[in-house]
Amino acid sequence: MSNLLLTGGTVIPVTGDGRIYDPGEVAIGGSEILSVGPPGDAQARGWQPDRVIRAEGKLVLPGFINSHTHAAMSLFRGYGDDLPLQEWLEEKIWPMEEKLTADAVYWGTMLAIAEMLRCGVTTFADMYFFPEAIAQAVTETGIRASIAPGLVGTRSDSAANLRSAIRFCSEWDGGASGRITTMLGPHAPYTCPPDFLQAVLTAARELEVGIHIHLAETRVEVKNIGEKYGLSPIAYLFAQNCEDIHILAAHCVHVDGPDIDMLAAGKVHVSHNPGSNLKLASGIAPLPQLLEKGVPVALGTDGASSNNNLDLLEEARLAALIHKGYTGRPTVVAAQKALEMATIEGAAALKLAGQCGCLQPGLKADVILLNREQPHMYPKVNPLSGLIYSARSSDVELVIVNGEIVLENGQYCTLDLEKVMYMAERTSKELLGL
Amino acid sequence: MSNLLLTGGTVIPVTGDGRIYDPGEVAIGGSEILSVGPPGDAQARGWQPDRVIRAEGKLVLPGFINSHTHAAMSLFRGYGDDLPLQEWLEEKIWPMEEKLTADAVYWGTMLAIAEMLRCGVTTFADMYFFPEAIAQAVTETGIRASIAPGLVGTRSDSAANLRSAIRFCSEWDGGASGRITTMLGPHAPYTCPPDFLQAVLTAARELEVGIHIHLAETRVEVKNIGEKYGLSPIAYLFAQNCEDIHILAAHCVHVDGPDIDMLAAGKVHVSHNPGSNLKLASGIAPLPQLLEKGVPVALGTDGASSNNNLDLLEEARLAALIHKGYTGRPTVVAAQKALEMATIEGAAALKLAGQCGCLQPGLKADVILLNREQPHMYPKVNPLSGLIYSARSSDVELVIVNGEIVLENGQYCTLDLEKVMYMAERTSKELLGL
Repeated sequence: MSNLLLTGGTVIPVTGDGRIYDPGEVAIGGSEILSVGPPGDAQARGWQPDRVIRAEGKLVLPGFINSHTHAAMSLFRGYGDDLPLQEWLEEKIWPMEEKLTADAVYWGTMLAIAEMLRCGVTTFADMYFFPEAIAQAVTETGIRASIAPGLVGTRSDSAANLRSAIRFCSEWDGGASGRITTMLGPHAPYTCPPDFLQAVLTAARELEVGIHIHLAETRVEVKNIGEKYGLSPIAYLFAQNCEDIHILAAHCVHVDGPDIDMLAAGKVHVSHNPGSNLKLASGIAPLPQLLEKGVPVALGTDGASSNNNLDLLEEARLAALIHKGYTGRPTVVAAQKALEMATIEGAAALKLAGQCGCLQPGLKADVILLNREQPHMYPKVNPLSGLIYSARSSDVELVIVNGEIVLENGQYCTLDLEKVMYMAERTSKELLGL
Repeated sequence: MSNLLLTGGTVIPVTGDGRIYDPGEVAIGGSEILSVGPPGDAQARGWQPDRVIRAEGKLVLPGFINSHTHAAMSLFRGYGDDLPLQEWLEEKIWPMEEKLTADAVYWGTMLAIAEMLRCGVTTFADMYFFPEAIAQAVTETGIRASIAPGLVGTRSDSAANLRSAIRFCSEWDGGASGRITTMLGPHAPYTCPPDFLQAVLTAARELEVGIHIHLAETRVEVKNIGEKYGLSPIAYLFAQNCEDIHILAAHCVHVDGPDIDMLAAGKVHVSHNPGSNLKLASGIAPLPQLLEKGVPVALGTDGASSNNNLDLLEEARLAALIHKGYTGRPTVVAAQKALEMATIEGAAALKLAGQCGCLQPGLKADVILLNREQPHMYPKVNPLSGLIYSARSSDVELVIVNGEIVLENGQYCTLDLEKVMYMAERTSKELLGL
């Protein structure tokens, strides 16, 4: 690790004050950001870079944070499209998942990481099985991740799985030079009865980790939880006494006013997954109302099998577009908010506030460069609008995680793409019986 | 022009029978497709290629057709975001358009064509001013276009503009080796009173061209036309006796059951513009109902100033996603339908049915290749799903229009990209006073 200077680009630090340095520079020392400012700033204080990357014509911003995915489900991309969530889960996905091995999860996660790095995602929150295999892929590739072992409370081996998950969290939290953090992943209210959910919450409290859960994703879930417990999914979670636990709740599509008040009061971090919610026909989450009530909202792709990609910039655009059209209010979810949801709000959702998610001295150096010198980004009038409404994730040219360059000019520095694609496809076809 | 063979790729002809050749080949002679079939097919009949392009790992399909845009509005990309349509038009765009010159429209159109070719768009339907400048850009760059001079009936020079438009259609229809066709472009019901609209329809009848019109884009339009004429925008159009005219109607967001029946009975081609409708908060068009009633629907981006790009594959994905989420029905607008809307339905909308829009012997050779050998396209299970739900327009590697290669490996064969971007940006900044 060395001193790296990115200079001459349009720097969007996403520090909440709307400030943009155009041109600007970012100085990186080891794994951390040393300074962000106008060009020449760091060197004026006597600092010398080991390497300089000229960023004229580029956007320089914090890496995107994918706050909800099941990385290894990239193995099932394109399998079982155009079905409702419950049917897709019960008839297509769950039978396949029964066949999963640690090896399969490793190659699926490697494929997903390759895709995410190429899209400028520097951190992801994963909820899945065989968490050690996920951790191995994260360790090797240099990406940052919050890994939550997926937990279902309705199986004969549920208690044993919880014990394994606790062991995973104990062993891996802070692993891979701090790039790995952990949560517990109780799947959803409809797969986690009260006793089990309380056991998970108790473990999370002892481990001092958060929980990562699916919440209020479909009307069917709301109906079933209502019939079973007389509560909304949100109220069901809060009935288990979780106020002191960091909660990352994916989806929250079907929430009403009291639910939103509970989410706001409980400081629940919502992962908004517009692409998956649209594709599975789950619905359109009340994002403007969540934001108006102060609920912290990040963005997620969900698994590639229900999206069908892991392109967080596409999720940011969807979030910025669909709620305007759906509510008839063109001012909701402006470009600035969409970018915050894709970066700094993602860090907060992953319990990484103050560690990454924006470009600020002392934070981890997770930085991406996008190329503006392309026809779809011209004229270069408004960099923020260009990023959210015009850019493509393929415009990402350079990706830095924890101060290390992991992708440069579209080439991977930490993984063998041909091997990953070959092994993932072979694994996928074996599982699908193709 | 010569004999060109694309062989070894996954060929998706979009001929309505769902057939895919995997692997397949497309043989091109001069400006036309000679054959589509399994590899070796054309040569088995004694045909010899002058050039062979190996397409292993690629998708081979008809070029995308952008059925509604205002290409030169790329000059205003990122200018006046997050405003309602009427305010954006009246306060931001119309004052800028007063300043337009033929030169500005030429450079704006060149920028838009550069973007569209890069996205795999081989044909576009344009409605704008200074149509000769648009025609010049189309002639030079090798793209195909239906050009409609924009017409407003409420100005002192409206009649003179209609005469100029008629002259343009007479001179340019069939121009640029047949790549240019023309329509008349009455702007919208609220800018075209009955007398003027009837004059336009009479002219279209005499010229044997279609009309390209904005229709039922916003609630405000429906309200105003209702108050003024006691009719919906659709009924207002049909009240002018247009049954024998080819109609390309952009948007049709706010249409009710009787409107949809009229559109179906009148064989009106609707250009669905989901990105623009969302961004301007115009609303969500009833696409599933339009399709169920048999209305032919194509896809458009609208201008880059309200989208903010000209990425037709993104529109296809939006069309495939948003109506699932909005209606709660995961089976509406399947991948196959979205692809048809982006290709063969676009050809029909532009009055080019039987000339382009699918890969079939005798049709014009408008063909694109997309690279599947990328992590977001793996595993290669379902090519159609991969194209609509996973791919990015930047995956387009080769673009052929009228048998000529216009873009190869991301490099333009018919335009100087640096010059186009430079001149477009300079023109834009002059207009915006920046």
